[in-house]
Amino acid sequence: MLKVSKKEMIVGGSKTHYFISPLIMDNVSLQSCPATNPSMLNVHLVPHTHDDVGWLKTVDQYYYGDRNYIQHAGVQYILDSVIDQLQKDPARRFIYVETAFFYRWWRQQSQDTRRIVTQLVNEGRLEFINGGWCMSDEATTHYSAVIDQMTLGLRFLNDTFGECGRPLVAWHIDPFGHAREHASIFAQMGYDGFFFGRLDYQDKARRMKTKEMEMLWRASESLTPPLADLFTGVLPNGYNPPEGFCWDQSCNDAPIRDDPDLEDYNVDEIVQRFLNVSYNQAAFYKTNHIIMTMGSDFQYENANLWYKNMDKLIKYVNALQAKGSKVNVLYSTPSCYLQELNLANLTWPLKTDDFFPYADDAHDFWTGYFTSRPALKLYERLSNSRLQTCNQLEVLGGPKSTSGPFGEGDSDTMSKAMGVAQHHDAVSGTEKQHVAYDYARRLATGWAHCEVLVRNSLAVLSGSESPRVFCENLNISVCPLTESSQKVLYFSMNVYNPLGRTVSWPVRLPVNGSLYNVTDSNGKAVDSQVGNYVFMSFKHICNIYDMKSSSLLPLLSVRWFYVSINSKSILVYVFKFLKVNFDDTTGLLSSLTNLETNQTIRLTQNFYWYNASAGNNKESHQTSGAYIFRPNSSDPFVINKTAEIQTVTVSSTVQEVTQWFSPWVSQVVRLYEGHRELELEWTVGPVPIADGLGKEVITRLDTDIESSDYFYTDSNGREVLERRKDYRPTWDLKQTEPIAGNYYPINSRAYIKDDKHQLTVVTDRSQGASSIYNGSLEIMLHRRLLYDDFRGVGEPLSEPGEFFDGLVARGRLLLALTPPKMAADVHRPLAQGMVLQPLLSFQDGTPLANTKLEFSGLQAALPPAVHLLTLSQWDKDSVLIRLEHQYQAKESETHSQPVTKLFSTLEVLGASEMSLGANQWKEDMNRLQWNTGSQLFISLTFEQIITLNPMEIRTFLLRVRQL
Amino acid sequence: MLKVSKKEMIVGGSKTHYFISPLIMDNVSLQSCPATNPSMLNVHLVPHTHDDVGWLKTVDQYYYGDRNYIQHAGVQYILDSVIDQLQKDPARRFIYVETAFFYRWWRQQSQDTRRIVTQLVNEGRLEFINGGWCMSDEATTHYSAVIDQMTLGLRFLNDTFGECGRPLVAWHIDPFGHAREHASIFAQMGYDGFFFGRLDYQDKARRMKTKEMEMLWRASESLTPPLADLFTGVLPNGYNPPEGFCWDQSCNDAPIRDDPDLEDYNVDEIVQRFLNVSYNQAAFYKTNHIIMTMGSDFQYENANLWYKNMDKLIKYVNALQAKGSKVNVLYSTPSCYLQELNLANLTWPLKTDDFFPYADDAHDFWTGYFTSRPALKLYERLSNSRLQTCNQLEVLGGPKSTSGPFGEGDSDTMSKAMGVAQHHDAVSGTEKQHVAYDYARRLATGWAHCEVLVRNSLAVLSGSESPRVFCENLNISVCPLTESSQKVLYFSMNVYNPLGRTVSWPVRLPVNGSLYNVTDSNGKAVDSQVGNYVFMSFKHICNIYDMKSSSLLPLLSVRWFYVSINSKSILVYVFKFLKVNFDDTTGLLSSLTNLETNQTIRLTQNFYWYNASAGNNKESHQTSGAYIFRPNSSDPFVINKTAEIQTVTVSSTVQEVTQWFSPWVSQVVRLYEGHRELELEWTVGPVPIADGLGKEVITRLDTDIESSDYFYTDSNGREVLERRKDYRPTWDLKQTEPIAGNYYPINSRAYIKDDKHQLTVVTDRSQGASSIYNGSLEIMLHRRLLYDDFRGVGEPLSEPGEFFDGLVARGRLLLALTPPKMAADVHRPLAQGMVLQPLLSFQDGTPLANTKLEFSGLQAALPPAVHLLTLSQWDKDSVLIRLEHQYQAKESETHSQPVTKLFSTLEVLGASEMSLGANQWKEDMNRLQWNTGSQLFISLTFEQIITLNPMEIRTFLLRVRQL
Repeated sequence: MLKVSKKEMIVGGSKTHYFISPLIMDNVSLQSCPATNPSMLNVHLVPHTHDDVGWLKTVDQYYYGDRNYIQHAGVQYILDSVIDQLQKDPARRFIYVETAFFYRWWRQQSQDTRRIVTQLVNEGRLEFINGGWCMSDEATTHYSAVIDQMTLGLRFLNDTFGECGRPLVAWHIDPFGHAREHASIFAQMGYDGFFFGRLDYQDKARRMKTKEMEMLWRASESLTPPLADLFTGVLPNGYNPPEGFCWDQSCNDAPIRDDPDLEDYNVDEIVQRFLNVSYNQAAFYKTNHIIMTMGSDFQYENANLWYKNMDKLIKYVNALQAKGSKVNVLYSTPSCYLQELNLANLTWPLKTDDFFPYADDAHDFWTGYFTSRPALKLYERLSNSRLQTCNQLEVLGGPKSTSGPFGEGDSDTMSKAMGVAQHHDAVSGTEKQHVAYDYARRLATGWAHCEVLVRNSLAVLSGSESPRVFCENLNISVCPLTESSQKVLYFSMNVYNPLGRTVSWPVRLPVNGSLYNVTDSNGKAVDSQVGNYVFMSFKHICNIYDMKSSSLLPLLSVRWFYVSINSKSILVYVFKFLKVNFDDTTGLLSSLTNLETNQTIRLTQNFYWYNASAGNNKESHQTSGAYIFRPNSSDPFVINKTAEIQTVTVSSTVQEVTQWFSPWVSQVVRLYEGHRELELEWTVGPVPIADGLGKEVITRLDTDIESSDYFYTDSNGREVLERRKDYRPTWDLKQTEPIAGNYYPINSRAYIKDDKHQLTVVTDRSQGASSIYNGSLEIMLHRRLLYDDFRGVGEPLSEPGEFFDGLVARGRLLLALTPPKMAADVHRPLAQGMVLQPLLSFQDGTPLANTKLEFSGLQAALPPAVHLLTLSQWDKDSVLIRLEHQYQAKESETHSQPVTKLFSTLEVLGASEMSLGANQWKEDMNRLQWNTGSQLFISLTFEQIITLNPMEIRTFLLRVRQL
Repeated sequence: MLKVSKKEMIVGGSKTHYFISPLIMDNVSLQSCPATNPSMLNVHLVPHTHDDVGWLKTVDQYYYGDRNYIQHAGVQYILDSVIDQLQKDPARRFIYVETAFFYRWWRQQSQDTRRIVTQLVNEGRLEFINGGWCMSDEATTHYSAVIDQMTLGLRFLNDTFGECGRPLVAWHIDPFGHAREHASIFAQMGYDGFFFGRLDYQDKARRMKTKEMEMLWRASESLTPPLADLFTGVLPNGYNPPEGFCWDQSCNDAPIRDDPDLEDYNVDEIVQRFLNVSYNQAAFYKTNHIIMTMGSDFQYENANLWYKNMDKLIKYVNALQAKGSKVNVLYSTPSCYLQELNLANLTWPLKTDDFFPYADDAHDFWTGYFTSRPALKLYERLSNSRLQTCNQLEVLGGPKSTSGPFGEGDSDTMSKAMGVAQHHDAVSGTEKQHVAYDYARRLATGWAHCEVLVRNSLAVLSGSESPRVFCENLNISVCPLTESSQKVLYFSMNVYNPLGRTVSWPVRLPVNGSLYNVTDSNGKAVDSQVGNYVFMSFKHICNIYDMKSSSLLPLLSVRWFYVSINSKSILVYVFKFLKVNFDDTTGLLSSLTNLETNQTIRLTQNFYWYNASAGNNKESHQTSGAYIFRPNSSDPFVINKTAEIQTVTVSSTVQEVTQWFSPWVSQVVRLYEGHRELELEWTVGPVPIADGLGKEVITRLDTDIESSDYFYTDSNGREVLERRKDYRPTWDLKQTEPIAGNYYPINSRAYIKDDKHQLTVVTDRSQGASSIYNGSLEIMLHRRLLYDDFRGVGEPLSEPGEFFDGLVARGRLLLALTPPKMAADVHRPLAQGMVLQPLLSFQDGTPLANTKLEFSGLQAALPPAVHLLTLSQWDKDSVLIRLEHQYQAKESETHSQPVTKLFSTLEVLGASEMSLGANQWKEDMNRLQWNTGSQLFISLTFEQIITLNPMEIRTFLLRVRQL
């Protein structure tokens, strides 16, 4: 495969109007950094605004400044005002972060304004920082969606401003704890540094004392340094200005009153106070440069207030230099500050774990949001799967995908909806209820656009333009087409598998008949195949018949099943990989056996709820809320000591036991033939609150695994970190919340293990998890609370349900029991299968003649270690592709090896490797280098374009021609 | 006397740096008015901000945006922002009103900004409206101070911008009722129109129904029309935008969301709503032009929000014209709107009374503030007297006044302090307590500057530079110099009389000795003169000796008294003009006799308090507060049915009776020899509130005068209006508050009368007054309340005292009994004497040799009808002088005649007559003309420069040389 020249790569042009090649300009931001004074304490004032892409208001309400009675915030005006003010003095600087907002604003600007803004960017006066579509949450996001949202934002900046628009610094000033995987992603995207505001208060106190507020974060155990190394700084005041120096319209600090003829002249007092603050802050940092974040939430709507007073501050503070003052204050940006730190050529401490959980006080652990809004968290995750499918089908179906027989479709709407959904008050569940609805609405709208695209694409790929429906509500057994199909006798189902390899996937359809024939695309009866399919009906609680099916799906493929009613009875199979025992007395699980490896553990599983603190105990008034998890006792209440076994179903493809714990908790324990995991499909809700008690519902798996205090959780769905109860790797923890202080976010999995056994739980969404007892693993499933937790959202987290008083959440946990060495071989593909789910679509009747019944976008399956992370249309002639080694170093004997095979089906005219964020050619990446004591740097050389090392993601822009 | 040419008049230059001759440019504002469409309904959007010169915060706090926790408001930013936004589109307009703020802002601007602003003014894009130093209160201000504050503001505008900066429209959108004298002043200042926001809700309802929202106000019964005619418009929404169209940062109305890709696109809905609002409003007005005030209190701090949305509104509303819409919306100004009304050439209704009292609902009469903060009201009035004295002495003393042996002094500081004190939340008493203190502090600072000037001037005039002290606390009998003078045997007192004629004025000094000799400047013993002097001692309640003196003061003169201790005893005289009887049983006044006219009335006087509503009755929750007077019963509680007579003093010059009513109410009834008035010196406070009842304290004069329902109150201290109980001249009043609804402001006097008798009360400050019963006149003296009254001030009016819990107020009422025809001859000079009081200063010992002991600035006393309203230094070579005919037409048989004599002592090189506001040559005044049905216009011709007609004020700029 030839690598195209740069010139060739930009021939294709762009979909956006303001395309500037990433290659035309150098990034001049650093060249335009303000002068500093090496013999003084340099105070870098960083004017900034923090614009939540939804929180108390929706993203569009924030943009327009609508519903200011909820919160005064209007981003359109912020950008208007900042651009005006920047023009007034070339010394002024501003950074902007959230591209979702900047994008909205930019397209409403005149050519004149665009020209002015471009000049400000080129001169480094307006600098983009972070630059993703949003500032993503770090605890509850999946790396796949994070990379997408970053790419979306960075691409807009790149298309619009070129190299000068490329952010050099990652900026997560607000997220509530920091994931190592995020740091790894930022490093791979070419960022030189990372700043954030929130970390555990004990950690911060220690770091201040030891001057370790700034460090090098080695964010991967697999990637060769410095590939995932990221310089990381803790900001001194969260992301706020020092106390008394907030001059936004939303603040009440005294302005600088420098007219001696008016009352209360205060220049001398303010200057003195600023000098004190500067010296105090400098004591916690290593260099003679310090940073001050001059801004906060939605500030700078009237930037004049800020700049006018900062101008005066700079003028009067620096005027004292003539009288011997050694403080030099200047407008700056994080990248200019970072450059000074780099030039200092110091040795920095190394950080290898993460920054979870986050506590801002002894009883204030932000571990509730790991689970808050479980339904939104699931919907976001499903939407990611749908977006990947949409992206892939846009590539595979070619131009007719977006404009075809079913109309105009697009993936952009879904990309943007997913972009905002990654925000740290979106999928995190910490937004107001109406905003949560808005995120869901956006995702639904995004999918509606994608549906058209998918219909078009499938029409192209199948050669059939027959109408096609998607059954969105299969999880609650609703699909009008299949349910009404007894009248038309036939319907057909199409399955698209977005993974790069074959998976087995159970399909369950609601029908009104009692027996169906299913045939595959070859006309063979599905249920006659060996153990690969589940297709069955049973009495539903509402007297509706469900149909169930699973199939071995071809990679990236379309496959047809034919379903018609007949009178055959159901066969029952025995499964070969797993065995589950139930306790006759309690009805609970009692043991789990892996029949392949011949290992058995004791396994009891039940549901409990922690009584949420109402803020009325003596240690602290902190309540449980959308952010905070604070049980008022370490002992959860069991919902029921016994489970009533309601139904037992045994068939050739699935075995199910339905457990009933209470009117609001039930579960289906399910084994599929040919599968190595045990599925626990839990249903929780409406959580009752008539007793006046907020409840945080968990399920707990109690085993005889000798896990001691250790357990393991993934970071954004990728690498796994070791956790230890009542312990932090980097400081001597004083544990003040024995439950909440041990909760960690899980995005796709958690496990406990000992020498022999590893019990891995793969989840369908982000949740909070912990191991409080030896051999125990608990996962929080749902929360319903009665009080706000004083972090701004101003609502108790008590989600309404559609039909009931209170949200009913349903989800799946997949349990795998393996020897530790074999665990990754099971949980890695299992988790990827959960993330990228097959897309089902339905048509009335049988397919027309000449319908192409099968199609594969890949000529062959990818190697087991390689995951097709991204396949999406970049512009008319280019496709973005990301290949990922999905195993960590050393976790799999088989798969934790470099992989050197690659695939292709499209006619690839050329390929260029890019940074992970796809906003820079890989060969142009030239990040700052940092010392960490004795650490030796190893340069990564690219021997072959097709080599993937463990946990590596490589990003390519392919120039393609549709075959 | 020659009138100088214009060219000559501007030779002198100006004290300000940015002087532009008033004569260089024409006012182009009107020429730059936006085009309108005669076949459509033209909606004039008037962007404006209403910037209180102190209210919840002090004027400087408002300017800087300090203490935003009290109220978010920062005028510096408003002007910054508006100037920025005006530059973005030449169609945009803005009006600015309060020169006190604009002045603060202007002097901090760069030359570049000043140039830009000047251009905006010249192009009519920024238009000054009203233009006084503040937007004065109309109920509690004295015309003298109002003219001064208008002149101060208008002069700054004139000096800075010339003719283009001359306001054409008066704009009192917030004051709580409207005085006819204000309208008269505006007319005489050359304003073409007047707009306001607040009027009685019944009046407004009627005017809307009859389309009389706009009218011609004939604001004087004395001045020949159209001299005091003023076109007057009632704004449709107070001064706010129509509901739903407020786009300030302080508002929460929905912005125009015109991006169809974002949620909640609302252009169609907003446009439709605006069309409805426009047509609804147009139904109440006569022309096809309507005005909308787009702004409110301290709005436009971030003007972008307003303009961005108004731009869109104009764009989308006018776009509908292509589809047949007949609404044309445009940026405009009040003067452009007024011009359209004038061009309509309609006949307008005529208004001759005033707009007091103001009620915004049935139980919400804004008649409390007539009396609120009685001590501030007095201090403001005394400060006016001091400022006039300071101005006069600056002229008379020449350049050494401002820079002389006692240092640098000025009258500007006092002028500006008085300028802000006229604000409708200043002297009105409706500000927060800390702001009231600030106004007082400013007046004190102003006086401190004036003191230096006065010392310098008196040094020049007397030829003696001996140190001089002013005893500020004579009203509470504190003057360290006179009290300690027994050690030095001698001190001397200087008296400066700012009136244009001789007055008799009692002087009372605290001393420690028991007997004093007093001699005048000629060495004659003062107490030996015939009946003209009071100089006596008596036992004070605190055992301190007071000394009292009165003298016949020369006009504008300096006169010396020598005081030394001797052993002479006190003589007692009998007085010739008045006789007072007391009731032996009650100790109250029982009758008053004028010995000259030989008329006697029954006169009982006592003190009462209305129980202030606590808002807990069933008709309304309205409380009494700083603004609102609402007694919860029409029957006031008597403080004591009897008065205890504490002391009776009879001397040759004064007779006093001290009445004690309660621990917090007492009074001295006092007659001076040679005086025609009875003085009632009341002391009220601390008003007790331990009983949980707010109190509004009145004194009531009950007589046998057959006044029926009629009584009379002055307007801003000038012309008198007839009042009638439960009646309004212009609409059929439905009286809902039998007491509060009958209160009117008095600034200097009130009276009742019948055919034979007129009892006139002259006051020392503004107060509220009424006549509830036949023959009765009541005056509210003090108020102490327990609740806020929901008009924004957010504090109950409960003033703290310096030494006690609660303010003690002391004041004087001067009673004159005359036949009605002779009343003005007494009360006019009496009131002017109260307004312009002699200034006393003291020196240790006897004057040095060669001290000039007497001086007069006038060669002869002014004619009795002529009042010297203004004599102040204009610039180095010019002096501003205002002469006033102080009698109304027909009120005095002797004095209500034109006067044709004039005076001079300075060498006057030339004189030019100006408008009342001194910002336009009188001959250039060319006001719009208005039709009022059959009314005939009479042009005023200036026959002689020295002719004054009743109630006329003439304003001259004199070019002078110091003799």
